Amino acid sequence: MKLKIALLAGDGIGPEVTQEAVNVLNAVAASGGHTFEYVPLLIGGAAIDAHGTPLPDETLQATLACDAALLGAVGDNKFNKLAPSERPEAGLLKIRSELGGFANLRPAVAYKALADNSPLRPEITEGADIMFVRELLGGLYFGQPRQWDKQTGRAHNTMVYTQEEVERVARIAFDIAAKRPKRKLTSVDKANVLECSQMWRFVVDQVAKDYPTVTVEHQLVDSMAIHLMNRPRDFDVVLTENLFGDILSDESGVITGSLGMLPSATLGGKVNLYEPVHGSAPDIAGQGKANPIGAILTAAMVLRFSANLEREAKIIEDAVVKVLEAGYRTSDIARGDIAGQTKVSTMEMGRLVLDRV
Amino acid sequence: MKLKIALLAGDGIGPEVTQEAVNVLNAVAASGGHTFEYVPLLIGGAAIDAHGTPLPDETLQATLACDAALLGAVGDNKFNKLAPSERPEAGLLKIRSELGGFANLRPAVAYKALADNSPLRPEITEGADIMFVRELLGGLYFGQPRQWDKQTGRAHNTMVYTQEEVERVARIAFDIAAKRPKRKLTSVDKANVLECSQMWRFVVDQVAKDYPTVTVEHQLVDSMAIHLMNRPRDFDVVLTENLFGDILSDESGVITGSLGMLPSATLGGKVNLYEPVHGSAPDIAGQGKANPIGAILTAAMVLRFSANLEREAKIIEDAVVKVLEAGYRTSDIARGDIAGQTKVSTMEMGRLVLDRV
Ligand SMILES: CC(C)[C@H](C(=O)O)[C@@H](O)C(=O)O
Ligand SMILES: CC(C)[C@H](C(=O)O)[C@@H](O)C(=O)O
Repeated sequence: MKLKIALLAGDGIGPEVTQEAVNVLNAVAASGGHTFEYVPLLIGGAAIDAHGTPLPDETLQATLACDAALLGAVGDNKFNKLAPSERPEAGLLKIRSELGGFANLRPAVAYKALADNSPLRPEITEGADIMFVRELLGGLYFGQPRQWDKQTGRAHNTMVYTQEEVERVARIAFDIAAKRPKRKLTSVDKANVLECSQMWRFVVDQVAKDYPTVTVEHQLVDSMAIHLMNRPRDFDVVLTENLFGDILSDESGVITGSLGMLPSATLGGKVNLYEPVHGSAPDIAGQGKANPIGAILTAAMVLRFSANLEREAKIIEDAVVKVLEAGYRTSDIARGDIAGQTKVSTMEMGRLVLDRV
Repeated sequence: MKLKIALLAGDGIGPEVTQEAVNVLNAVAASGGHTFEYVPLLIGGAAIDAHGTPLPDETLQATLACDAALLGAVGDNKFNKLAPSERPEAGLLKIRSELGGFANLRPAVAYKALADNSPLRPEITEGADIMFVRELLGGLYFGQPRQWDKQTGRAHNTMVYTQEEVERVARIAFDIAAKRPKRKLTSVDKANVLECSQMWRFVVDQVAKDYPTVTVEHQLVDSMAIHLMNRPRDFDVVLTENLFGDILSDESGVITGSLGMLPSATLGGKVNLYEPVHGSAPDIAGQGKANPIGAILTAAMVLRFSANLEREAKIIEDAVVKVLEAGYRTSDIARGDIAGQTKVSTMEMGRLVLDRV
């Protein structure tokens, strides 16, 4: 198996966690006789510094020529004064849209070993296993028109979806739900207020007819924000529009215990895009404090969805569980008050996972 | 003191919880020599059933002639097929906009007696005391244009704010923060993506200059959804646009333990509007299962903000704490596995609070 992977390490802790993900991928390649080639490219603040733009054309073209794109994180406080369209995040949004992947898969899983790291009680999180399917190319993120008119003082953004956009992401979510043991899909909207959501709900109900084995429910986004905390085990696949998914999948990070643990994969476009859910965390960048597990689990998703190496993906995921069960913790998941834990750096954590792969 | 109060009991559990709030108000009136007059009016599904519209003109005009409006809840599943503009919720949105109150105050407080009711660990919630100030008349709720075009399959809504709209709600939030012990204001936005949010952040920073004693921080809505669960005690006044406030204030209901406990007051317009945060809960309506405490605490806010009876408001709030500490629980906050609790009905709970007022 040959795979050419665009490495978009980005800003802050992006480069250090991406390095650990690459180390793990290399180990899989070496032991399985696969060839993974990496193409390091600039994006985000790093690209602004070098080329004055958060997504240089070279980065985009080179990524389009790859089989998969592995991104670290983008964003730095020093660009806060720029308009949204010029910030590091604009580079991320542009590459998302150019690569064309519309279904962002974000698992939120409770690990037994991390039960003490969640602000939620262990009896609430135990066994929780949710797959968010967040629509990634529509809604307020990309909607036109959008403007802050400094003359009139009026600012606006547009939340927009077409039925086709809802249908294609719903199909991916139903496909996933149909293969999971619980076979349940919860679609999130604000249909009591928004026309966008009313259409969303209608289309989801249409698509549902093709998946008779999947149980469907609709939840309003405000209620869902509570239910996810009160009874996370009741959810299986959760389908949302772009911004609702941004908020709810981050919120559900508390089920796992740290954003630093969460991977994501974006499917459906020309090139699949893989990124950990955490941000660039500039305050801890370069100090060996970042948790590489989000990036490493993201690498597992690369193997699963871009290389069809399901067994190898599972091996990485199991290795992460073993390292956690052995008590190793980066600072985001360390708890000084609990015995039997060993605090480790980004590189040490990477190495520990590697040893078990 | 004379007060004329529009009673908009609405749908589902609205009438039963509103009745308990009125009983408590009457007790305060009787013991303090005040005269509270009530004007019962139809809204929501009840108004659609009687008059074919969720906000009859008579209701609106009569409410505008009152000193305060006390709302129960609106919404019923039987109207789910209607367009957002014809549903019970449209009556709520219309009366909000006609009354003109733009600052929706939603306290989220951790009660010691309810610590076991939260999915969050007691050491996380203990002492949490947040005041959400949710902008209530702008954003996606009211933005034009909005449409689901069934010919093209395209649906859109508009998120829109003017600088004046942000400034006026920010001033109310800062005024409140300046009077609280922590003097901290957290403004929530999605400024890394939305022009609306970029303007929001700019205006909040401008207003902040007039409040040098208040510490200001900005949080992205996705991060805030986590922080509220991980460290609720770190927040004091939380200022948000309309939809972000809808989601985050509901989410923060888990800090208290039940939505049924949460009151709200909407200030800044012609007539202040008071409504518990919970919805109409049609599944338990008319069974005596609803928790009237949200409505009763809302009545306390009527006394505080529309009658300037701060002492009386405090008496009601203290009475609620005493009833909870004595172990009385409606079904939403009852835990069968904890000794010393007595399960009570809506009316019994109302009576228990009344006895202590
Ligand atoms: C950095 C930001 C633009 C991004 C988003 O909002 O999509 C991030 O929060 C995420 O969830 O991947
Ligand atoms: C019923 C609905 C329109 C309303 C809202 O979204 O504002 C409710 O959720 C609330 O928070 O008061």
